[in-house]
Amino acid sequence: MNKVLTISVFDELRDLLGDRVTQDTDICREHGAGYSYHTCMPPDLVVYPSCTEEVAAVVSICARHKVPVIPFGAGTSVEGHVAALEGGVCIDLRQMHQVIQVSYEDMYVTVQAGVTRNQLDKLLERGGFFFPIGPGVNATLGGMAGTRASGTNAVRYGTMKDNVLALTVVLPDGQIIQTGSKARKSSAGYDLTRLFVGSEGTLGVITELTLRLHPCPETIRAAVCMFPTVEAAVKTAITTIQKGIPIARVELLDTVMMRAVNQYSYLDYDEKPTLFMEFHGTAGEVDEQVRKVQEYAEAQAVSGFVWADDEPSRTRLWRARTDAAPAAMALIPGSQLMGTDVCVPISRLAKCIVDTQADAEATGVLAPIVGHVGDGNFHLTMLIHPDDPDGFEKAKDLNERLVLRALAMEGTCSGEHGIGMGKLPYMPMEHKGALQVMRAIKQAIDPDNRMNPGKLLPPI
Amino acid sequence: MNKVLTISVFDELRDLLGDRVTQDTDICREHGAGYSYHTCMPPDLVVYPSCTEEVAAVVSICARHKVPVIPFGAGTSVEGHVAALEGGVCIDLRQMHQVIQVSYEDMYVTVQAGVTRNQLDKLLERGGFFFPIGPGVNATLGGMAGTRASGTNAVRYGTMKDNVLALTVVLPDGQIIQTGSKARKSSAGYDLTRLFVGSEGTLGVITELTLRLHPCPETIRAAVCMFPTVEAAVKTAITTIQKGIPIARVELLDTVMMRAVNQYSYLDYDEKPTLFMEFHGTAGEVDEQVRKVQEYAEAQAVSGFVWADDEPSRTRLWRARTDAAPAAMALIPGSQLMGTDVCVPISRLAKCIVDTQADAEATGVLAPIVGHVGDGNFHLTMLIHPDDPDGFEKAKDLNERLVLRALAMEGTCSGEHGIGMGKLPYMPMEHKGALQVMRAIKQAIDPDNRMNPGKLLPPI
Repeated sequence: MNKVLTISVFDELRDLLGDRVTQDTDICREHGAGYSYHTCMPPDLVVYPSCTEEVAAVVSICARHKVPVIPFGAGTSVEGHVAALEGGVCIDLRQMHQVIQVSYEDMYVTVQAGVTRNQLDKLLERGGFFFPIGPGVNATLGGMAGTRASGTNAVRYGTMKDNVLALTVVLPDGQIIQTGSKARKSSAGYDLTRLFVGSEGTLGVITELTLRLHPCPETIRAAVCMFPTVEAAVKTAITTIQKGIPIARVELLDTVMMRAVNQYSYLDYDEKPTLFMEFHGTAGEVDEQVRKVQEYAEAQAVSGFVWADDEPSRTRLWRARTDAAPAAMALIPGSQLMGTDVCVPISRLAKCIVDTQADAEATGVLAPIVGHVGDGNFHLTMLIHPDDPDGFEKAKDLNERLVLRALAMEGTCSGEHGIGMGKLPYMPMEHKGALQVMRAIKQAIDPDNRMNPGKLLPPI
Repeated sequence: MNKVLTISVFDELRDLLGDRVTQDTDICREHGAGYSYHTCMPPDLVVYPSCTEEVAAVVSICARHKVPVIPFGAGTSVEGHVAALEGGVCIDLRQMHQVIQVSYEDMYVTVQAGVTRNQLDKLLERGGFFFPIGPGVNATLGGMAGTRASGTNAVRYGTMKDNVLALTVVLPDGQIIQTGSKARKSSAGYDLTRLFVGSEGTLGVITELTLRLHPCPETIRAAVCMFPTVEAAVKTAITTIQKGIPIARVELLDTVMMRAVNQYSYLDYDEKPTLFMEFHGTAGEVDEQVRKVQEYAEAQAVSGFVWADDEPSRTRLWRARTDAAPAAMALIPGSQLMGTDVCVPISRLAKCIVDTQADAEATGVLAPIVGHVGDGNFHLTMLIHPDDPDGFEKAKDLNERLVLRALAMEGTCSGEHGIGMGKLPYMPMEHKGALQVMRAIKQAIDPDNRMNPGKLLPPI
């Protein structure tokens, strides 16, 4: 954005928002990177609206001046979603943290887009309901919708696409629309809710969300167990899914990740391919699920089952999984983490993981793996050694080979991180002719390409 | 379509498809109505392609001549989806009935769009998996995707939107694209699969679908039970959902419908608001679900529980529900049925039903009700008396008041039938500003408005 334009937009925004607009260099820089390895690209201005109407007014001003708009939640994206590639105005939604309505009877909650996962958890704590989607960080619900996030519970409860009933969206021209309704299903017209979920801010700004709640299970049991091979662990997960066991979480940590976890959290698990599992239901249902899954696991030479029934011991058990990212980074002090994810049909998962492990080893990149194996989705957490001048290039190449491997297996280049700018090169390969339909939609809704430009759709 | 154009298009299609193109008046008329009360509007031509490439060639010819294209499955739509309002070419997809791939390991099946529900059921019979979405008729899978169909299992297994992994679509210019992938989830770009599901043939022709399969439950139990009031029946269903019981089906039949069912099928159920239920799981899980739901039902003064455990008795029990439409029509010999559906948040369902019953009675229209109550979705089956000259107008008005009632309750004008042309007037009321986004998408993908014109989007 040129200087004259910046001054003029700044003045208009200042009239609207008072001191909730800033061009402070440090703040702008904080908003230009997210949790990603991508170069920081700061916006020209950051604004902090507190309601949908203010967002609409901000977007209108930007529309009039033809200035880019980048929505910003908690900044936890790993694919460079928040980088202001062409400058412009970053809309930080974190002051939009109001809970608008909770209906336990209809099992939904309506929140402003800046409400975070942890805030929502706390709100629901005593209501007997929970919201199942949880990425590994304290993201905002708006950001999670934007990237179609999922996490460890998706195998049973689905992803953001399955758990958003309705949205309030500010369109590129500043108009406010509602998508969906409070009914649990509808066949009335194009599914705009599902279109905006996963659109990464490129079609408008999500300002409010109505989310499906799920009743808290009566009983929860968690377990950790080890397998001789990745294949054996994955086979156990696949059998569980195929037999219709409604397992709530089934996470794979590979040998390298188990080593990281042991070191980081002072644990002494066997360093083998490991499943972290969780079962939800009534006491009887959970017993039955556990009995069956143990049987499938035993057929795969499982060892070292550890169980956690009460809340504190479950939290302790899961902490090893939740701390996977810092644990991985601690393997190489001073390293930088480059995280990536792909998703493949579950029958191809074991081969995809094993081939990727071999590739990482051959490339000389330490890259522990965690996977949401029930969905065929896994993360490669590549550690870039501070002393390796080619580390970044090696990791980039490894990432590319992983994506090509997943696509060759009829999978997708991203299961839950989104495209941002990191996965742009793979969009034509994955979608081929369908990409032109995505472009047509973008052009129809955001003809000036001002909404988070340079993300999701590669340049022509 | 004018005569010269028809001849020219006919010749080109005949070159392509030989005798699989017809302008026979009777056949064209059969393709112009579906199961709906709407006036039959026959296409000029009907074609029977056998593969995606042939559909693409047909659509290309139509594009060159700027001729409307209407996709046709089993013709079971009730909202006038198949009416050729501007003439044109009807693409009957029933010769596309090949099963392309079945993967039990990855739990999906890929089929051509003309495969029907019954055909798919039969195919899966011995594989240990099933496809859960079943409207009350033997629709094609392509048609079911087109209208975002659901049915009695949706409360547990979701609707078509939740069970389609990937699509092959022929775009309005004849290009073939793939949406989605065989991975169970993805966050790679706009969700085109969910955009085409429910688009009612207005954006392209769905020619192939990859569908999620679910493992057949080890144990299935079904039950019928009666309640003193609609409220008591609905309350039982709501409690079941709120408590997280994964009930597979929970259907309400009101008193009038129970009378219809008794008469039609020579049964002697108490003529009271009745729930038909089905439980899926392991033996232990089903026992536990049943015990709990019985408890909730008893708190609502339930009576007359009838159970069905083995397959033949379950089929017998469910036949009463499946035959609801013909049973309703038999209440008034010679009557015409006008079916409609709405969906509301479940807390509003009982009031919506009771108010609608009162409205029907005051209007003098016999209108039995069946409802997928776990989702807040119900059908009003209005019977138009052959001797009542105002019958049709009365039913239309009753339908309109029902839709307005549902919208006032934050619901939707259609839970599963779609818009077609029957629900067009309610699209602006339900979607307000969002309608312009739908129009922009339609304009972007089908700029000449040739794909099923006059459906889903009301004229401006």
